[in-house]
Amino acid sequence: MTQKPRQIHLNAFLRNVGQHEAAWRLPETSVAAVTDIEHYRNLARIAERGKLDAIFFADHPVLKDRSQDRPWDSLDPFTLVTALSGVTTRIGLVATASTTYNDPYGVARRYATLDHVSQGRAGWNVVTTANAEAAANFGFEHHPDPDARYARAAEFLDVTLALWDSWEDNAIIGDKEGGVFVDPDAIRRIDHTGKHFNVAGPLEIPRSPQGRPVIFQAGSSEPGKDLAARYAEAIFTAQPIIEDAQAFYADVKNRVKTYGRDPGRVLILPGLSFFIGGSEEEAQTLRNTFEDLTLPTYGLAQLARVTGIDYSVHELDSLVKVPARAELEGNLKSRHDLVHRLTATEDLTLRQLLRRLSAGRGHRIATGTPEQVAATIIEWFENGAADGFNLIPPALPTSLATFVDQVIPILRSRGLFREDYEGTTLREHLGLDRPKVTRATRSPFHAAAAE
Amino acid sequence: MTQKPRQIHLNAFLRNVGQHEAAWRLPETSVAAVTDIEHYRNLARIAERGKLDAIFFADHPVLKDRSQDRPWDSLDPFTLVTALSGVTTRIGLVATASTTYNDPYGVARRYATLDHVSQGRAGWNVVTTANAEAAANFGFEHHPDPDARYARAAEFLDVTLALWDSWEDNAIIGDKEGGVFVDPDAIRRIDHTGKHFNVAGPLEIPRSPQGRPVIFQAGSSEPGKDLAARYAEAIFTAQPIIEDAQAFYADVKNRVKTYGRDPGRVLILPGLSFFIGGSEEEAQTLRNTFEDLTLPTYGLAQLARVTGIDYSVHELDSLVKVPARAELEGNLKSRHDLVHRLTATEDLTLRQLLRRLSAGRGHRIATGTPEQVAATIIEWFENGAADGFNLIPPALPTSLATFVDQVIPILRSRGLFREDYEGTTLREHLGLDRPKVTRATRSPFHAAAAE
Repeated sequence: MTQKPRQIHLNAFLRNVGQHEAAWRLPETSVAAVTDIEHYRNLARIAERGKLDAIFFADHPVLKDRSQDRPWDSLDPFTLVTALSGVTTRIGLVATASTTYNDPYGVARRYATLDHVSQGRAGWNVVTTANAEAAANFGFEHHPDPDARYARAAEFLDVTLALWDSWEDNAIIGDKEGGVFVDPDAIRRIDHTGKHFNVAGPLEIPRSPQGRPVIFQAGSSEPGKDLAARYAEAIFTAQPIIEDAQAFYADVKNRVKTYGRDPGRVLILPGLSFFIGGSEEEAQTLRNTFEDLTLPTYGLAQLARVTGIDYSVHELDSLVKVPARAELEGNLKSRHDLVHRLTATEDLTLRQLLRRLSAGRGHRIATGTPEQVAATIIEWFENGAADGFNLIPPALPTSLATFVDQVIPILRSRGLFREDYEGTTLREHLGLDRPKVTRATRSPFHAAAAE
Repeated sequence: MTQKPRQIHLNAFLRNVGQHEAAWRLPETSVAAVTDIEHYRNLARIAERGKLDAIFFADHPVLKDRSQDRPWDSLDPFTLVTALSGVTTRIGLVATASTTYNDPYGVARRYATLDHVSQGRAGWNVVTTANAEAAANFGFEHHPDPDARYARAAEFLDVTLALWDSWEDNAIIGDKEGGVFVDPDAIRRIDHTGKHFNVAGPLEIPRSPQGRPVIFQAGSSEPGKDLAARYAEAIFTAQPIIEDAQAFYADVKNRVKTYGRDPGRVLILPGLSFFIGGSEEEAQTLRNTFEDLTLPTYGLAQLARVTGIDYSVHELDSLVKVPARAELEGNLKSRHDLVHRLTATEDLTLRQLLRRLSAGRGHRIATGTPEQVAATIIEWFENGAADGFNLIPPALPTSLATFVDQVIPILRSRGLFREDYEGTTLREHLGLDRPKVTRATRSPFHAAAAE
């Protein structure tokens, strides 16, 4: 038997009724679905039917601007994936949570519990929260700047990982006869004292099925890439162009090596949105259907957020050229660069630009037949741009079902995607080892016994 | 048709493998069940089969003392009930969360999401956390004293309730044609500024099926009873003696009136543990089976916590008299008083005292036939001591199943407990109205528009 080729990893990024801003206006979309658990159960089941690695939800702990223009991810993502654990059995469950607007003990116990109740399927997408308005919901006078946020994130992760490792795997003895439930020496305080946090531990929760939840990270700024290289096991990124994706891939894998970690155990998953049709023309028609329903008010607000420029006074049908900006960094810089390059290389009216930006929002977009979408995936996967993709269906449930039914069989026929789950945990789907308990490497305080 | 008599409310307090400290040592108990979601799913299904109002989990955000002596509630209760929402359809889901060691925006969004994903079955048991050691897990130098904790709790509740009311029920318009998803005027900031919290709001979540989750509270101290009278819709209490329970009932219902609230809409639910047998003797034998398996190390630690006295040097088989203490208050006082009265009125050895205290821990215990247990419930219910009970099964799943199969049919035959659920939400099970959106009564800041 020959060795199985390297496998593509596919994760479904589920945004209410779809990533596309106009998805809710399609005739087939249920507006009530935004808060309807049956909608999300259906999505989870479709993704599990496709044998995807995981479903993933974003975090927005603040009401978004222009709420009248479109739905947003209005349910708490951690609570939502936890609820979905009861109606699925294999698929990974990844929820985003902010290190800026949470405390590490609370996050550690919630995600450890999710790993127990999902029987080893929990993942945490670590973010520092880019939306400055969230600060006002958590008693912060100002949204911390990126350096401050990432410094806090690193310490937050140190504490969380130490808490998850505060129990040995074999701590529960369960000796009924002798009356010894646990071995107290196998449970240790962490006694973390740091700049942002003082946490004694240990966690009150036995070590979870995966050892600890899988750490996902999404950040393209310098501190973001650095944090990912130190801690992440899978990395989300927005990369519309293969050359840029290859450079990002090489850069991050190198950084991972610098931290003494195995780059083969850190997966890079760019976002991929898609419009799939029986022919290329049909796919373009589908994309046009979405773009015809966009609202300029919303697109202008998004454009202002990315470029810092208010185009609402600009004629919609006049040509627009967005200037370059050198001072930005991270996600915002890469999105601004995209808009700048687009208007520099093509003559677009403002209306055309807004339509173009409505799909994908900085992510790769594949518009074509199932074969063409599969070819893009394979091209990136085989040429050092991706270990797989974070799929971003423009409309839900329809686009997800189309991908599962039409694109995945092609990837399978090439031997590049699983026929069925081979393991039961998210770590097994991702090809990641179950981590051993590590202590004393992060903090000199781990040794004190709890009792 | 005659009017249905007032109905008993029954809630199941599910503590890992049972409330009794020795439950884990019974031959039939699975030690692995402590963190096994299948165990909890089974419990939830038994409770739902019995048509109970709700299941309820306690919160212990810190590893307990003497962890080697017995299991504890080691999973995060909110995450656990959320996971159980997927395998149940009617039963209420009540999770405890601390106002001392959480932030109000985070709690508001998690519980509002639970109310959505459970389709109207969420309840929040509000506690201020009595275990002083929790402070060290959340960066607090000291555990705040009760007055400080309750002041924070009141403001925490004000903020949370305002966030849940930051959306009108009809805020989602969903006008696809006109491109208007929500009415921005029906979503308002709360702009709370207070001593403990500054929270802008609004919540990013549409108003939930119950309007807001049901507020439970458990506290017997003066500030605890006051908080309950102002905010709670159901109140847990530990009352071993009917006369004391009647006094508590009258006191709290009066306080509720003082705050201009309807005492008929605030349910008082004392705890009830039980040992059920085919005869009284069989029930006592069952109780003895538990007590024979108790570990003196654990009982002594609990006794020291309640009395402040270390009895570990006292001979186990010598008589013991626990002195009265005037300076205590709240739960600790009522539990200390119980121990004092017990040793004052009966001649008990230390060993006998520890055995006696192992069952119930300050709660009412019914030991007898199903008829006798039902008679206790009815006596309390019909004589101004209770609106129902918080059932505390000594061993799980066995004691819960016995209660559901043997006691509930008796209550039903008297017309005092539902044959089946008549509504779909926890509020409907409890006979509570869906609250209307209230604004500006709590804060002068509610009026500012979000957009």
